[in-house]
Amino acid sequence: MILIKLGGSIITNKSRKTSPRKKAIDAIAKTLAGIREPIILVHGGGSYGHYWSVKYDMHTKPEKYDIEGVAKVKNSMVELNKIILDALQKNANHPYCVQPACFMNTDKPMRNKIKEIGEISKTGMIPVTYGDALWHGKKTYILSGDSIMGHVAKVLRPRLCIFAMNVDGLLNSPNGELIREYSQQVPTMPGSDKDVTGGMMRKVKEAKRISQYGIRVFFVNGNKPDRITKAIKDSKFHGTIFRGKRRV
Amino acid sequence: MILIKLGGSIITNKSRKTSPRKKAIDAIAKTLAGIREPIILVHGGGSYGHYWSVKYDMHTKPEKYDIEGVAKVKNSMVELNKIILDALQKNANHPYCVQPACFMNTDKPMRNKIKEIGEISKTGMIPVTYGDALWHGKKTYILSGDSIMGHVAKVLRPRLCIFAMNVDGLLNSPNGELIREYSQQVPTMPGSDKDVTGGMMRKVKEAKRISQYGIRVFFVNGNKPDRITKAIKDSKFHGTIFRGKRRV
Repeated sequence: MILIKLGGSIITNKSRKTSPRKKAIDAIAKTLAGIREPIILVHGGGSYGHYWSVKYDMHTKPEKYDIEGVAKVKNSMVELNKIILDALQKNANHPYCVQPACFMNTDKPMRNKIKEIGEISKTGMIPVTYGDALWHGKKTYILSGDSIMGHVAKVLRPRLCIFAMNVDGLLNSPNGELIREYSQQVPTMPGSDKDVTGGMMRKVKEAKRISQYGIRVFFVNGNKPDRITKAIKDSKFHGTIFRGKRRV
Repeated sequence: MILIKLGGSIITNKSRKTSPRKKAIDAIAKTLAGIREPIILVHGGGSYGHYWSVKYDMHTKPEKYDIEGVAKVKNSMVELNKIILDALQKNANHPYCVQPACFMNTDKPMRNKIKEIGEISKTGMIPVTYGDALWHGKKTYILSGDSIMGHVAKVLRPRLCIFAMNVDGLLNSPNGELIREYSQQVPTMPGSDKDVTGGMMRKVKEAKRISQYGIRVFFVNGNKPDRITKAIKDSKFHGTIFRGKRRV
């Protein structure tokens, strides 16, 4: 089983409101159709949900956010999700949409519901979920796609986790060299970190956490879908690897 | 609190594949914006999910249905749901999309998750859910919007339930007279009953069940949204009423 996160920056033009990168989505969907192993897909919000969450100043912290903002985040995520579902279907996959509220109870993951997602992936369908605004007892909060990766990986223990992003992986300085294997150094993050949901810093944190379950984590450039295939086939890999090491 | 079901035949042209009735949807969305009371919306599948469930011979009984069919039902429902969400938003409502898998565990409703939907409706947002294909331990089944009405009404006990359909209500014979108040007679059903999810017969069954919780249920013509308003305002009502009577 493989757990894949499609970052908001790879599936959308993050700087432009509701602007999908349809070619990039299509290329990834095509790649996934060639994989003969259960896949679970998580995607970010980019210029859809992420855009609106910034606009309405919504965060991961539960608050009484403007209901107009909550509705906009949620509806725009349905829209982006539909684009992903359509691309998957067009490329001979069988996507199975699962809103995150289906396996989250406020901010607590529901083990049995996440296990269900694993079962669904074993039928050949591809469960697809995404970062979203979630209810939290009279409040709401933003659950990031990256956090979902952590929740799902913890329960399902996939063979590997892939974060597809719009850079080659972790760089040792802005525009610097690729870090091919993550150790404990604190790297300089490429791209903007001004994300509501934490940007690259959050991805590193989640990747470290997941690798501690003994699962390998890859950061790859989603603009080169063959790198996703290579990560899966364990052939020559271009990106950053977090080796699966159990905490002692 | 008011629980409203928009039947597949009112929001889509049931005989034509993926054909929404945008004007009818828009008119209802406009009407709902004028209601100052918590609303929860359920919609059917019509020429989207319902169409595909017929095509792939999927039923309310859990079976190992073709995964292509499951994906088609589910994705087409996301599409129809998005049309409803957009119409609501365009007409100054704040919809909050909730897939049925968020409050169902296989075929069992989850009380706490349904209560959450009630809380969300009290913020002024309109939770919107729909009939869908759901997972049932290595199998799937079709959960109808009508069954959702029963599940939600049982937990939340709304002040009234409205089934908006493309006929005036229950008729005493095909093309016959409107039954203004339902008693125990078995009525002749208008329209086709060859629905995967049971058609009018199912609506009557659910309406009877809901009325036994002491809740009034209205069948109204969704093509005349002012009838929805009148049902809510308790003024001169045109349609069929199931009076809320508790079972002795």
